[in-house]
Amino acid sequence: MPQPRSNRDRLTLAAIALFLANGYEETTVDDIADAAGVARRTFFRHFRTKEDAVFPDHDGCLARVREHLDQADASADPFAVTSRAAHLVLDLYAQDPATAAQRYQLTRQVESLREREITTTSRYQRVFADYLHRCDAGKGEDDRLRLDVTAAAVVAAHNHILRKWIREGGSDDIHARLDAALGSVEATLRAWPTESAPHTDELLVLVARPGTPTWRLVREIQAVEGRR
Amino acid sequence: MPQPRSNRDRLTLAAIALFLANGYEETTVDDIADAAGVARRTFFRHFRTKEDAVFPDHDGCLARVREHLDQADASADPFAVTSRAAHLVLDLYAQDPATAAQRYQLTRQVESLREREITTTSRYQRVFADYLHRCDAGKGEDDRLRLDVTAAAVVAAHNHILRKWIREGGSDDIHARLDAALGSVEATLRAWPTESAPHTDELLVLVARPGTPTWRLVREIQAVEGRR
Repeated sequence: MPQPRSNRDRLTLAAIALFLANGYEETTVDDIADAAGVARRTFFRHFRTKEDAVFPDHDGCLARVREHLDQADASADPFAVTSRAAHLVLDLYAQDPATAAQRYQLTRQVESLREREITTTSRYQRVFADYLHRCDAGKGEDDRLRLDVTAAAVVAAHNHILRKWIREGGSDDIHARLDAALGSVEATLRAWPTESAPHTDELLVLVARPGTPTWRLVREIQAVEGRR
Repeated sequence: MPQPRSNRDRLTLAAIALFLANGYEETTVDDIADAAGVARRTFFRHFRTKEDAVFPDHDGCLARVREHLDQADASADPFAVTSRAAHLVLDLYAQDPATAAQRYQLTRQVESLREREITTTSRYQRVFADYLHRCDAGKGEDDRLRLDVTAAAVVAAHNHILRKWIREGGSDDIHARLDAALGSVEATLRAWPTESAPHTDELLVLVARPGTPTWRLVREIQAVEGRR
């Protein structure tokens, strides 16, 4: 288990532990500062409210995510770039599974904390969607819908994997789990219905073993379509 | 334009108009009650806070959605049942496009209202996901991921369509737009990679015109796979 080193980490650990032990409403900023062994003013150097103290540094992470997306190569695959951004968010939790588990338990109990987590999640989703829209600027309305759905799917996959990993004790490689999940999302979204192509008299012939995963067939079909 | 009839509707219209004209912080519950021509106690019969007054009756809608999902036939297609639930949510806005447009403008301006809307949205997503999980109880982990992504995709499509419709003046049939969007989502999610099937020596041969929408090919492939 990683040892907390910064005052910020110590305050977060103390806040979560006190909220779980004594109740969220009952715990004050002074209680948290005392338990972390720092002065009250140190608390307010890191957090505006006791609610803030529960969460990992999402502002910092959002800045890293934005920088990553802004600096992505224009020729890079937008889904791959977005996936990498989701891994950056996952790092916030993966670095300290024990705290992630306690926070999970706490947000299940305190509605205002759960709501705070949801609005935080939505900020990442918005940043992912904005990036995807920038990559596909000028495309049609159906593409814009697809991109909003893509951002939502990436965030849903991230949250699903994170919750499951926490519930299972947070011991194995969560990044590998997210890779697999995002692989399924990517393969699926490739099947988004495209605007109908011009009619030709050619025929597409696909030969495959039954039982071949559908996404592989879709990939083959789209490879052929792309070459025409 | 529909005329507001209930005190609740009158209070919501007054609240949104005053927040837009004078600012959210500056407007009091008394101001809203006065403008709606009702007593302060009437306001509190409908809403707990001035923030509540901005939104349509999500609690009532959530109850209708839950009832719809609970009473769905066990043989019904879960995606179709969830789509119908999304239409129930859309009704909240479609019935009064002018108010929906003003509310949209307001939530763009006031962060706390925007966050409130996001947490409301997440409640629907959770209810959709819970229903989908109940329908597919006992399936594998990959299915559970797919179902969480499905719920997120339905909500993302709903929000995308709603925002676009509001921005465009809210005149045409928003339910037809949502139908088309959810059709794309459904066709796409059919391509979710399935667990690999047992190996056989059979071959699948698919013959189609190039340019045939991918989702049609997927549907054909899956129909054949299902018959084996």
